[in-house]
Amino acid sequence: MDIRVGLAQINPTVGSLATNAAKILDFYNQAVAAGCDVVAFPELSITGYPPEDLVLKDGFVSENQMVLAEILKAVGETVAVVGFVDSEKDTVKLYNAAAVCQNGKIIGVYRKHLLPNYDVFDEQRYFTPGVHNPLFTIKGACVGVTICEDIWSPSGPVSVQASLGAVLNLNINGSPFHAGKIGSRREMLGARARDGECVVAYVNQVGGQDELVFDGGSMVLTADGTLVANAAQFVEELLICDLALPKSKSVPAPQQSRGQIAEPLDGDAQIFAALVLGTRDYVQKNGFTDVVIGLSGGVDSALVATVATQALGSEHVHGVAMPSRYSSEGSISDAELLARNLGIDIQTISIEPAFSAYLNSLEPSFDGRKADLTEENLQSRVRGTTLMALSNKFGWMVLTTGNKSETAVGYFTMYGDSVGGYAVIKDLFKLKVYEICAYVNQQSSHDLIPQSIIQKAPSAELRPDQRDDQSLPPYELLDPILELYVEQDKTAREIIALGHDPDTVKRIARLVDMNEYKRRQGAPGVRISTKAFGKDRRLPITNKYSG
Amino acid sequence: MDIRVGLAQINPTVGSLATNAAKILDFYNQAVAAGCDVVAFPELSITGYPPEDLVLKDGFVSENQMVLAEILKAVGETVAVVGFVDSEKDTVKLYNAAAVCQNGKIIGVYRKHLLPNYDVFDEQRYFTPGVHNPLFTIKGACVGVTICEDIWSPSGPVSVQASLGAVLNLNINGSPFHAGKIGSRREMLGARARDGECVVAYVNQVGGQDELVFDGGSMVLTADGTLVANAAQFVEELLICDLALPKSKSVPAPQQSRGQIAEPLDGDAQIFAALVLGTRDYVQKNGFTDVVIGLSGGVDSALVATVATQALGSEHVHGVAMPSRYSSEGSISDAELLARNLGIDIQTISIEPAFSAYLNSLEPSFDGRKADLTEENLQSRVRGTTLMALSNKFGWMVLTTGNKSETAVGYFTMYGDSVGGYAVIKDLFKLKVYEICAYVNQQSSHDLIPQSIIQKAPSAELRPDQRDDQSLPPYELLDPILELYVEQDKTAREIIALGHDPDTVKRIARLVDMNEYKRRQGAPGVRISTKAFGKDRRLPITNKYSG
Repeated sequence: MDIRVGLAQINPTVGSLATNAAKILDFYNQAVAAGCDVVAFPELSITGYPPEDLVLKDGFVSENQMVLAEILKAVGETVAVVGFVDSEKDTVKLYNAAAVCQNGKIIGVYRKHLLPNYDVFDEQRYFTPGVHNPLFTIKGACVGVTICEDIWSPSGPVSVQASLGAVLNLNINGSPFHAGKIGSRREMLGARARDGECVVAYVNQVGGQDELVFDGGSMVLTADGTLVANAAQFVEELLICDLALPKSKSVPAPQQSRGQIAEPLDGDAQIFAALVLGTRDYVQKNGFTDVVIGLSGGVDSALVATVATQALGSEHVHGVAMPSRYSSEGSISDAELLARNLGIDIQTISIEPAFSAYLNSLEPSFDGRKADLTEENLQSRVRGTTLMALSNKFGWMVLTTGNKSETAVGYFTMYGDSVGGYAVIKDLFKLKVYEICAYVNQQSSHDLIPQSIIQKAPSAELRPDQRDDQSLPPYELLDPILELYVEQDKTAREIIALGHDPDTVKRIARLVDMNEYKRRQGAPGVRISTKAFGKDRRLPITNKYSG
Repeated sequence: MDIRVGLAQINPTVGSLATNAAKILDFYNQAVAAGCDVVAFPELSITGYPPEDLVLKDGFVSENQMVLAEILKAVGETVAVVGFVDSEKDTVKLYNAAAVCQNGKIIGVYRKHLLPNYDVFDEQRYFTPGVHNPLFTIKGACVGVTICEDIWSPSGPVSVQASLGAVLNLNINGSPFHAGKIGSRREMLGARARDGECVVAYVNQVGGQDELVFDGGSMVLTADGTLVANAAQFVEELLICDLALPKSKSVPAPQQSRGQIAEPLDGDAQIFAALVLGTRDYVQKNGFTDVVIGLSGGVDSALVATVATQALGSEHVHGVAMPSRYSSEGSISDAELLARNLGIDIQTISIEPAFSAYLNSLEPSFDGRKADLTEENLQSRVRGTTLMALSNKFGWMVLTTGNKSETAVGYFTMYGDSVGGYAVIKDLFKLKVYEICAYVNQQSSHDLIPQSIIQKAPSAELRPDQRDDQSLPPYELLDPILELYVEQDKTAREIIALGHDPDTVKRIARLVDMNEYKRRQGAPGVRISTKAFGKDRRLPITNKYSG
């Protein structure tokens, strides 16, 4: 029993029902032209994933169903599996569902059983779990359909459907990227295929949606767990795979299945690609073409500018150097060298006149008090205001450059260096920033990011001879503690028990906790870890716990 | 069967396990001294509600259990019902639970059945639902215990426990305030009491926690739905009620139950009290004593200053007038009059020097482009930066003054008038701001908020003769549309069908949607509606829906 399966790894836009439908039809027609018997689209492909509270609007849910009805009209013999929001008549119940469509009709609907409600997911806020396991006959083969989370449970609907006779499971996903996920995903899919003795065809959305990046990486694994087709990550693609399926579970599957297998990306390449796609989609899906970045001559802004250039093209990226009385000569020349390497424009605007004006205006109020953090923050806020003025005047989105280490301990100025629409590297610890810079340079024929930027000691340059390590432990100590405290939810006590310096751990834990209010007013940015500062970490601001 | 019930309406602090325990013991001892047979504390009273992702830290959960063990040691004959996080050994399962304690022991644990996962609630993120209905004998009476949401379902555990013989249900709560809630709460409790033919004793937390305000208002209703005891709202209180209970369900309850009944607050009084308590707790629980407010001479900042003065005392509130070239004479004099009325200090800092300095520094970059929104935003950002400089120098928290109408349509400047730690009136539409100002003046012997402030046409004063109604529809049109669009989740199409002007509705809907990114970087503030711009409204920033 030969069957040609298409996996349409598309990049929808949340809420854009009409353009999502057009994209679905475009890929459907490509699949028909390629002779596919069935083509599967990602989870909630009509609405884009995750639609969040949009599904609480009755009007939105009915429009998504009207759009599905429009799509149906164009569906012929080739089966289309399309993710949409289903509802139960005369109730408020909603379902995360897949419509199985053929010849202008919905031949069946599968409703997701397992609704993730952890990390970034809130599906139990919206949806009622499905309980049925409909099976479909496609070109003579018994086929099951499941949605995302459903396949992660060994005893879930995939195994139930297999036991009912399914020889192929089409699993449609909105599965966000995090570093290292693709390995565990492939391993899990292999296990599920072997457990159920069925082929697993996994299709995943691609694209950026606020903080999430969906990496695609759709794949097909045969009943023995062999990977026979694999789409590239981070790009739209119609993955086609020819499967040799048994007619029923009683006959062993012959080994004659094949599709294209994309070259896998290594770890740093995946992270860089996620940053690029997340940034491009956030900027462009929100109607911007150009971005502006404060270039300090440091490594964070250098990486952000590099990502932006890759995402948007060098002509759409604008650098600004904003020297103060404390800026080193190297800061400006390094920023200029970087801009030259990237082919982006750069202008220089001194923050001195506005800084001086503030100091004069505030002098009576400050009443002779000595300079402190106030004056450092003031300079940072003059920079932020300057970038926002350029943003307002020219319609450029400001990209902000804070990394996860700074964000964690609050080593940034609210309304200062934190201003901006998108925080590209907010989920990269400082040491990871260096690692990705090294990756970037290794990919280029030369040092795209100048060594002088990479080598210099990190500094905010807000007072004479300032260096980060005067305020913070060295990043080699800081980052591992932050990873335990923030990403692994260890308490300070537990981290100390692991052998870290007690005073350092307590101080860092306190800084992380007391700066929740600052993070809460920060820009969104690409999530690349299992616990970013976003929807996956919901800690109270008012919080006196110090464990 | 006479029983004396204490309801300890306490104000815990999230995460502050030790001080929460001390408060529980203090109220326990008061209840013992008052001869109570049983005293009930609010939901999760050991951790404070809601603890959010703190419960994902294993160490936090075990500490909360150690604290419970400490409390136990002080518990004697008088039964204590204490909310805590229970866990299942050797699993990751957590329960929102109530420990029923007597004579140094836990005599039973009730685990919450119904876990709210809508609006501001995420309980299915954390907890496994309980399934048991243990009953307790207290002074010979059969008593059930339930937690918050449990009592809202007619077929839920309250009715099950009543059918099993409970003649009294102790329902412990972390139930946040919204305008009008207390009426529906009382009605529901009465219905539940009548349905189950049992006395319902409802205890609720009091205090502010980030955006939520818990209003207390603990109460006791007899089996016929009669209110026999009622605590005041928004203050800590030990409510005591003597109940005449039947020994079992077979004997009808005699009508000899009584406790204190507090005078109810009317609608505006409740809202004002919620603003005051929310602001006081946010400021003080986060370690601040003083606040600073930009006083524009407008009604929003006037109300915020009034709330702050009530919350913190006039000596802890600092006003700043920040005139520009476009400020009217009246703005300054009105701000000064308000400050005099409230007894708060006021200083004047001109924004002209910094504004001019920016214009000069930016002139080469702006390259002869004409003035636009950029220059308006610049002035607003100079004000924001000035307030933050005072905040940094003196340790005052900035209170920001935006109302819900402005917040909805994005009629504010990011990093400008939106800067601050707490947005006191962010959930009050503009018309409601006027209404609460009128309430404030009516409560005073004179016009605490000057009539000149209330009467003037709203203006941002960022260009000559600017008025809000040049950019926005009049608030009498705007607010009702916003209520439908934001609070009731109607689509633009549906609102137009209700008879509102199509162009106005479409424009407003678009403004609300496109300004999600601005709101996302805003300060938290008191929630007084059923749908604030906070955890109860989770819309994507990247969102192309326009229904």
